[in-house]
Amino acid sequence: MHKERKKDTGIALDIALIHYPVINKTGETIGSAVTNLDLHDIARAARTFGVDHYFIVTPYADQHMLVQEILDHWQTGYGATYNPARKAALDRVRIADSVETVISLVTEQRGQKPLILTTSARVQKNSISYRETRRRIATEEPILLLFGTAHGLAPEVNETADYTLPPIESTTGYNHLSVRSAVSIILDRLLGVHEEL
Amino acid sequence: MHKERKKDTGIALDIALIHYPVINKTGETIGSAVTNLDLHDIARAARTFGVDHYFIVTPYADQHMLVQEILDHWQTGYGATYNPARKAALDRVRIADSVETVISLVTEQRGQKPLILTTSARVQKNSISYRETRRRIATEEPILLLFGTAHGLAPEVNETADYTLPPIESTTGYNHLSVRSAVSIILDRLLGVHEEL
Repeated sequence: MHKERKKDTGIALDIALIHYPVINKTGETIGSAVTNLDLHDIARAARTFGVDHYFIVTPYADQHMLVQEILDHWQTGYGATYNPARKAALDRVRIADSVETVISLVTEQRGQKPLILTTSARVQKNSISYRETRRRIATEEPILLLFGTAHGLAPEVNETADYTLPPIESTTGYNHLSVRSAVSIILDRLLGVHEEL
Repeated sequence: MHKERKKDTGIALDIALIHYPVINKTGETIGSAVTNLDLHDIARAARTFGVDHYFIVTPYADQHMLVQEILDHWQTGYGATYNPARKAALDRVRIADSVETVISLVTEQRGQKPLILTTSARVQKNSISYRETRRRIATEEPILLLFGTAHGLAPEVNETADYTLPPIESTTGYNHLSVRSAVSIILDRLLGVHEEL
């Protein structure tokens, strides 16, 4: 099944939404709560842009159950017949208890460790450009893209990643996008079909 | 106040999220309900990319009250001190009862009728490219960008607009993005600071 999808899209990109370890307003490491709309919006964007799997990462058992209940409704419950397009999006969702687990699962599936990229609202030391990332995606290099909830990924996640994508910038200096917006924009920059700008 | 903001960003772009007239799954014209997260996510994206005003368009009085309650919480209530960045985003939000009202308000503010652009998940006849739109934004031509909730803008809105932006495309053929994702991506395409792709 994976092979067919890969043939469809010609890419080997997975994404993960991290609920632990992330930081709060004051920079402390916390675990955040899963939200229904993060599941839906990001699954729809992932499906639109040909992302293979969308991992929801949290160590909390009750949160795993919550995610599974939502998935069940849309995959086998009333939602599946009411809205098949939503089912097609949520089919990409997987639940994992840690970043390490996601890396193991993707490594096993791809047969090699993926390039691990983080995203941040602040410039990090190990920056990689969107253009270079697009180039690598085109070669079908396995890539795992990590997004943080709350006030962003804990520093150790950025430090252990291979590279970090630059913040989404405009000319206003304001950078408080929702994670749903940030994921959508970054997937469009990496995978969208663009005119020459 | 507007003049200062315009000087900051050098653009004259407003957006509106339309809750009536939009279409449902079967193509009938309906009015949709305002959602809290459409307010927040899109206000944050608007503030990030230097959009001047973000109009919430609905004819229903109870929906106007709901929007006003949310705005009050974040602008003058507890939310204003708890999260000043959110206040700065929601300060851009305005409530209007119809598309016509928004056009009148923007025309009055800008001293001329804005160029009216719609967005759609389907290709429309009167298409304008993202590149051409960026060029017009750079000349500070007043532009009003309309987004539909539910299954998209009613046909008459697209037909009376000057142009429609092309759908956001990838190679998958799936185009069921949330309106929050679509707005974020389109603002990034029109106003984001990009590397050469």
